[in-house]
Amino acid sequence: MALPALPAVVVIRDVGPCDGLQPEAPVPVEERVRLIEALVAAGVHRIEVAAFVSPKAVPAMAGAAELLAQVPRSANVHYAALVPNRRGAELAMETEVDELTVTMSLSEGYNRRNVNRSIDESLAEVEQICAVAGSVPVDAVMSCAFGSPYEGDIAPKAVAAMEGRLRDLGCAAVTCADTTGMATPRRIEEVLHETGTDVGLHLHETRGTGLVNAFAAMQLGVDRFDTSVGGLGGSPFATGAAGNLATEELVALLDDLGVHTGIDLDRLLEAAAMVGELVDRPLPSRVAAAGPRSRLAGGA
Amino acid sequence: MALPALPAVVVIRDVGPCDGLQPEAPVPVEERVRLIEALVAAGVHRIEVAAFVSPKAVPAMAGAAELLAQVPRSANVHYAALVPNRRGAELAMETEVDELTVTMSLSEGYNRRNVNRSIDESLAEVEQICAVAGSVPVDAVMSCAFGSPYEGDIAPKAVAAMEGRLRDLGCAAVTCADTTGMATPRRIEEVLHETGTDVGLHLHETRGTGLVNAFAAMQLGVDRFDTSVGGLGGSPFATGAAGNLATEELVALLDDLGVHTGIDLDRLLEAAAMVGELVDRPLPSRVAAAGPRSRLAGGA
Repeated sequence: MALPALPAVVVIRDVGPCDGLQPEAPVPVEERVRLIEALVAAGVHRIEVAAFVSPKAVPAMAGAAELLAQVPRSANVHYAALVPNRRGAELAMETEVDELTVTMSLSEGYNRRNVNRSIDESLAEVEQICAVAGSVPVDAVMSCAFGSPYEGDIAPKAVAAMEGRLRDLGCAAVTCADTTGMATPRRIEEVLHETGTDVGLHLHETRGTGLVNAFAAMQLGVDRFDTSVGGLGGSPFATGAAGNLATEELVALLDDLGVHTGIDLDRLLEAAAMVGELVDRPLPSRVAAAGPRSRLAGGA
Repeated sequence: MALPALPAVVVIRDVGPCDGLQPEAPVPVEERVRLIEALVAAGVHRIEVAAFVSPKAVPAMAGAAELLAQVPRSANVHYAALVPNRRGAELAMETEVDELTVTMSLSEGYNRRNVNRSIDESLAEVEQICAVAGSVPVDAVMSCAFGSPYEGDIAPKAVAAMEGRLRDLGCAAVTCADTTGMATPRRIEEVLHETGTDVGLHLHETRGTGLVNAFAAMQLGVDRFDTSVGGLGGSPFATGAAGNLATEELVALLDDLGVHTGIDLDRLLEAAAMVGELVDRPLPSRVAAAGPRSRLAGGA
């Protein structure tokens, strides 16, 4: 009677400053830089910090180049920027960015509503982004990988086929996103059976399954996760969609399970508290609210 | 690459009408009976329905005998009532109750704050309750089984020793409760290693780990869970404590994993909606908010 072994090390990419804050009221660049500094100080060394999108369409992401010029730099800290198209990639490449992320959907219906393009048009865009990126790695995030609110379940073989196409177009990495919280351990097992475990997972708490899905995926060998400090984020195009898996909820779990992340939970909670101040409302993250399990009564 | 097998069948005891509503503003007996009817109609056949406690101390639980006289009866539906002491057990035994639950803590500090008794005094009470109960089974719920906000971690051997003492006193079943959300898959594995898997688990979402803990426990062979419709409940003596694991979040997971519970998720969500009306605020349950994963956009 024993649980399966987990990976010894898990790499966490915090998407809070970008994916997390994107649906929120705009936060000034300096405040976002402060948040990124807090994350780096906590040992979060992969962060999606900005999106090179139209500031008219997404005011919360304005100032991407300015932000990338101000974030703290060190050899082991990698900053990703989301780019929706070739133009965004060109703008991003004028900055010191370490990685580009691009999102496209496995759901034709979701892709149309999200970016007003067909999947094939999105793939053509990905190809151009990879060409512009040159030696900077591109991570393609496949949304609705575990189900779509428009078409229902997506065939695991279709997920794997799309992964192959994206790698053929030049993507260095592929991430499966559970955009609308439809993943379950069984769906994850079925998809990973086709894609293999060399994928990142981007999980949502829409139905409260983010952590259990991460746990199951780690049991199967996945060791890369996108999470969001404070649990912010969520798709505006999905009914009832809640936030991303909170970085501190995953780190608290991994700490207790003896899986190395390099992240200091107490300092991470300071960054989460900062997020709470930035958005000025209670965060979805329960660990941010309750504190770590080591925090005993009486302030001990 | 495969996840461990889970039990084929899991027994869920819904504690919503008792443990869930206890910290809330009082709900009239007739409304609680309506909720219990909705749960039974959804296929929830084990329900903690009432507590035989002082109505002065816990106004929300007033009318326990009256309630037990009105709940729908059928051969496969089992109603449990919480009893804090011999007097409560005597009152419960005057009704058609199928099971008594009694709570005592593995944490001396928590037990004192919760019931103003030492653990030994609580055990003496359990002995008397078992004597009064006769052939009606008593389930002893050990709170703080996976950690206490006062003493920190509780030694797994101490949990197993207490389980043995409770069975010796006449308890037919023992449940390990994660009263303040300190359980993790590793703590659960450590405790079950000592207690064996013939225990129920009563899990909380204080730190967002209820579902992942249930999943890990099932992988280890546990097949009995206390959950609360809508995710209500929580200890008033634990900082930042959130609700119980929501029945519908566990059922949604188990449905997808092919584990039989006998519960119809759609009808269960109707009961959860009723709970939301009774307490007149948004429920902690994300599945209650977002609906099942099968609920596609456009009402399909």
